[in-house]
Amino acid sequence: MKQFMDKDFLLGTETAQKLYFDYAATTPVLDYHCHINPQEIYEDRQFENITQVWLGADHYKWRFMRSCGVDERYITGDASDKEKFLKWAEVIGKAIGNPLFHWSHLELQKYFGYHGALNKNTAEEVWDLCNRRLSEPDMTVRNIIKQSNVTLICTTDDPADSLEWHKKIAEDSSFDVQVLPAWRPEKAMSLEKAAYPEYIAHLSEVSGISIATFADLCRALSARMDFFASMGCSVSDHSLEYVMYEPASEEEIEAIFAKSMSGTPVTHEEELKFKTAFMLFAGKEYAKRNWVMQLHYGVKRDNNTPMFEKLGPDTGFDCINNYAPSSQMADYLNAVRADGGLPKTIIYSLNPNDNQAIGTILGCFQDSSAVAKIQQGSAWWFNDHKTGMQDQMISLANLGNLSGFVGMLTDSRSFLSYTRHDYFRRILCNLIGGWVENGEFPADYGILEEIVRGICYQNAVKYFGFNL
Amino acid sequence: MKQFMDKDFLLGTETAQKLYFDYAATTPVLDYHCHINPQEIYEDRQFENITQVWLGADHYKWRFMRSCGVDERYITGDASDKEKFLKWAEVIGKAIGNPLFHWSHLELQKYFGYHGALNKNTAEEVWDLCNRRLSEPDMTVRNIIKQSNVTLICTTDDPADSLEWHKKIAEDSSFDVQVLPAWRPEKAMSLEKAAYPEYIAHLSEVSGISIATFADLCRALSARMDFFASMGCSVSDHSLEYVMYEPASEEEIEAIFAKSMSGTPVTHEEELKFKTAFMLFAGKEYAKRNWVMQLHYGVKRDNNTPMFEKLGPDTGFDCINNYAPSSQMADYLNAVRADGGLPKTIIYSLNPNDNQAIGTILGCFQDSSAVAKIQQGSAWWFNDHKTGMQDQMISLANLGNLSGFVGMLTDSRSFLSYTRHDYFRRILCNLIGGWVENGEFPADYGILEEIVRGICYQNAVKYFGFNL
Amino acid sequence: MKQFMDKDFLLGTETAQKLYFDYAATTPVLDYHCHINPQEIYEDRQFENITQVWLGADHYKWRFMRSCGVDERYITGDASDKEKFLKWAEVIGKAIGNPLFHWSHLELQKYFGYHGALNKNTAEEVWDLCNRRLSEPDMTVRNIIKQSNVTLICTTDDPADSLEWHKKIAEDSSFDVQVLPAWRPEKAMSLEKAAYPEYIAHLSEVSGISIATFADLCRALSARMDFFASMGCSVSDHSLEYVMYEPASEEEIEAIFAKSMSGTPVTHEEELKFKTAFMLFAGKEYAKRNWVMQLHYGVKRDNNTPMFEKLGPDTGFDCINNYAPSSQMADYLNAVRADGGLPKTIIYSLNPNDNQAIGTILGCFQDSSAVAKIQQGSAWWFNDHKTGMQDQMISLANLGNLSGFVGMLTDSRSFLSYTRHDYFRRILCNLIGGWVENGEFPADYGILEEIVRGICYQNAVKYFGFNL
Repeated sequence: MKQFMDKDFLLGTETAQKLYFDYAATTPVLDYHCHINPQEIYEDRQFENITQVWLGADHYKWRFMRSCGVDERYITGDASDKEKFLKWAEVIGKAIGNPLFHWSHLELQKYFGYHGALNKNTAEEVWDLCNRRLSEPDMTVRNIIKQSNVTLICTTDDPADSLEWHKKIAEDSSFDVQVLPAWRPEKAMSLEKAAYPEYIAHLSEVSGISIATFADLCRALSARMDFFASMGCSVSDHSLEYVMYEPASEEEIEAIFAKSMSGTPVTHEEELKFKTAFMLFAGKEYAKRNWVMQLHYGVKRDNNTPMFEKLGPDTGFDCINNYAPSSQMADYLNAVRADGGLPKTIIYSLNPNDNQAIGTILGCFQDSSAVAKIQQGSAWWFNDHKTGMQDQMISLANLGNLSGFVGMLTDSRSFLSYTRHDYFRRILCNLIGGWVENGEFPADYGILEEIVRGICYQNAVKYFGFNL
Repeated sequence: MKQFMDKDFLLGTETAQKLYFDYAATTPVLDYHCHINPQEIYEDRQFENITQVWLGADHYKWRFMRSCGVDERYITGDASDKEKFLKWAEVIGKAIGNPLFHWSHLELQKYFGYHGALNKNTAEEVWDLCNRRLSEPDMTVRNIIKQSNVTLICTTDDPADSLEWHKKIAEDSSFDVQVLPAWRPEKAMSLEKAAYPEYIAHLSEVSGISIATFADLCRALSARMDFFASMGCSVSDHSLEYVMYEPASEEEIEAIFAKSMSGTPVTHEEELKFKTAFMLFAGKEYAKRNWVMQLHYGVKRDNNTPMFEKLGPDTGFDCINNYAPSSQMADYLNAVRADGGLPKTIIYSLNPNDNQAIGTILGCFQDSSAVAKIQQGSAWWFNDHKTGMQDQMISLANLGNLSGFVGMLTDSRSFLSYTRHDYFRRILCNLIGGWVENGEFPADYGILEEIVRGICYQNAVKYFGFNL
Repeated sequence: MKQFMDKDFLLGTETAQKLYFDYAATTPVLDYHCHINPQEIYEDRQFENITQVWLGADHYKWRFMRSCGVDERYITGDASDKEKFLKWAEVIGKAIGNPLFHWSHLELQKYFGYHGALNKNTAEEVWDLCNRRLSEPDMTVRNIIKQSNVTLICTTDDPADSLEWHKKIAEDSSFDVQVLPAWRPEKAMSLEKAAYPEYIAHLSEVSGISIATFADLCRALSARMDFFASMGCSVSDHSLEYVMYEPASEEEIEAIFAKSMSGTPVTHEEELKFKTAFMLFAGKEYAKRNWVMQLHYGVKRDNNTPMFEKLGPDTGFDCINNYAPSSQMADYLNAVRADGGLPKTIIYSLNPNDNQAIGTILGCFQDSSAVAKIQQGSAWWFNDHKTGMQDQMISLANLGNLSGFVGMLTDSRSFLSYTRHDYFRRILCNLIGGWVENGEFPADYGILEEIVRGICYQNAVKYFGFNL
């Protein structure tokens, strides 16, 4: 029996251990997609207690607490930080098989030096230990990032954002981790929302381009992309119901845009047509700039209306939407491609059943402008666990070029989440090590090092074209 | 090499064995959902031969025989019981990888003390052994239930049922296993069927409430729920094409109901609207009574018309229906929730691809009124095998609270099926034992006992609120 | 650690090794579905170099090269054969986890006696070795087939095909492997294509039946089926978007046919109705002749328009189409069944998510006219790898009769692909051996031999009714 989460955690064979310790563990972290706040990096925030870090904004943990019957008062309510932590400790102690159990313990080990198990019996000692540690000077946000061996972070930003914090960080010579913006024009394409005209007015002002038509919107977005590019951006991100393809004429798109701007609700069909046009425009612009296009889809958000009204979005009430026609995704990519401009693209679905459809779509649009130009993103959100990551990598290997995979990202709002890269790397090395031990791939450590370091870090450096 | 189905069957590690023998094996059985006939319990039926028990009504076995090219005469036809058994023995002997092979041998071991393999060579000895054993006094229905360590059984009953056999069993002090009704209003919502007006007339008579409108129907059903509750019922069950959400106005629903009652066929859209209204009503009523709502979906029934005309329903001609939009299921649960009354709910899909969508939907509707208030049901019907159960539990663990899971049920028409609880418990203990042996969870036997006994029995006792 | 792809490759237990070497390895190969060219068999082609064999027409390999960023010049372009091979060697050396890696090395081992690993360092020596070997007299097409222990091959042929090469092979007493045609009426049902009237005119001429109506088309096809049957054909094959069921009246079908023949494009709905009618006709005809109906579905073809325009179909730009309603597949099979004529049927989906739906549909239509009359086909195309094959066999075993499975086919355009049968047999023996070692099935070698040899060869001989 292996010891509980010891140094060989998830590394089931000697080859897996060798690959991890010789290659993976020492490779830097490139976090090309996350949701952390650059202001907290610039201001080098220090947290007062572990509840602030762990339970302040983490809807994964909130969901799990609700699944255990914990009262909302201890989740997002007015209980004290210590009360909240004690409830969390109680439920995580029984969270067998859940990735939160592993993530939390990897964080306790790496940042707090705690190698026991967190549960109701150890809650007090962990509370004290973590808070003591958090008050130490090397536990500010910047120091956490540095000790995590992170070289570059891409945040997630609205086209109208001033990027002031990114600018300040870049100008601060005392911090040499690159913190770059990523382009996420979600509000600019959400014409089905009541706040759309207001957003467009704001974007108009920020861009200095008066937006009366969809063509104007495209011009304004182009200008903002140029600004983002000047700030080091080379990555975009889209959250889509699914990757739709409902083509329409320019005239029709302009009419739909005008309808929405006049405050009239659009139909779902009009929304799909508009978003298709938006994505066709976006794809071409990214290709021109050699940006990467990230497509996240398969989510149905805010399913619990009373809780949404109380807590707002991103509070733990989202689920998989299993309607996602692969034919439309292929048609969209083909349309961008045929129009001369398919950018490097990373596809993520929240539904793991889509792994194989995605894997076969990648293969239809590869070319020599990049290794693994069209990628499947690492197991995302609800799939970010041992089985999810294994399944995604096995599917990718079966259907395409695993050795060209750009690997892991945190997608996180927390500064302790870099342990998810450790988690991913252990699972990767265990998978590859298992194949080698089983005689399915040669024990050629020159090739294996190239593959492992590539997936951990080097592929992403090359793929995104970062200056590292 | 392990011996064939010995005491450590499916228990691949020492920890798995310890969990099974120390905790799981000795825990009672709570069969909260099955299709057995309470009359046979009251009358304490004794079977004449093993063919009656095994092949009398088991469409799982019938399907398998047909897949092996066995003539229908030996399945549902006029061959003798012995001829049928000999055919069954021949095909089960080659049923490698099929759960029927394991179920049948677990039953042979537990109830008949036979530890060999059933096949064409051993058919005669097994036939003799089983029939001799079945004639013994401890092999009546009640004694089988008692020796299976069952404390409570929920049958499946129509709202118009008199529950006379449940009453008689409850009044019989010589049998202390609780046999409770469960509410299954399938006929009351199947307005697309020709027999609907006739059923409504019958329900009218039984309830004493004249049913001319949908509102009347709701009143009659409420009255019957009160009667069921007085008989100890706290569980409902629904068989749905999928969990639909097609809201409509009260007027529209009344018009659809009236149309059906007048003998005019309704459209599929009308059917979906009516059933949505029915399910919204039902959910609220269950919540009021603190009942559990079970939702079974994803089946397409009676696909072989010539065989349906010959043998009727539930004879082995059903398949998975892979159309089941997760968005509508979320919208339905949200609508009941927003209306103030989401009951404890257990969701079962026949399509294992739905595991992850279900797992993420659960998390959107949990609250502190129960631990794991919204559950995913144990691997159902065609999924009731080693890989199906493992996948369901791994998915549940990845996405939610496995330790709050209410665990196994038989869903069976046979009195020997309690071995399926053994089968489930072995798979559960093997899964958890494997995690512990692999260092993924601490070897803390206090917590492990609580988790294992919880999933085997205690969670269900608490969740359903049974008096045990 | 096991040695790289040694004799026990993929055979993880002693029982697996015993099953493979004692039963599987020595059983002949029956390749009941492939795309090889019978002319090349008759003419006994000899290849000049390994690039011709491996990269001449293999779109699996082309896709993989594109995924690695290789320029099209080295794939389908004007680079020399040696340049192409060197690029291939470079990328295959890093193709960890991809079935091409295993297939290629199995071929190097079996046909070229090379047991090293192919990569950029070994490329030159492998190029020389393979080309030397290919020039030897025992490496002609016929000799490759014979040394692969193949007894029978079914090609894939159009109803209008003269089958001249099949005839010549049959008449050539120096080659005793049966090479039979298989009936693939794809062009005859593709009325949505512009070339349809032209094809129908050609079929008219070949059949000697003037085709002015759908009824005429059916008569012409019947006549051609009789001709194919006279040439030994007993297998058909269909490539379908999905197995649709959109019934329409005879008049409507005739109108749709007339519309298409007049050169007017049909709607998608008309296409579905026509193809439903076509498939109902085809199913009945196959049943009459005791032919096997193969249904391949779930593909979206030719997704990259610029590349399609350059290279044509079957060049590596196809993907999974995940729209495939199981309800329509069940309804289609039921309609053919109810009409008196469901033939033996093998169902293949490109989407592995369909495994379970297919597995449950099989069970609805079995009868005593054949063992496992309705089959799920072996893991197809993008699923033709270790996990795909395992998943298909586990699903089949869980839901039906694995021991009646007709097993592997190559589906290949290459004469070296018979190693895929080895690959399949290793995976099969490993799966079954694992169950036996784990105590899940008895170590009864009489039964195990029957099961293993059955799936490898004997089941197919019986099922297709070949004269072997």
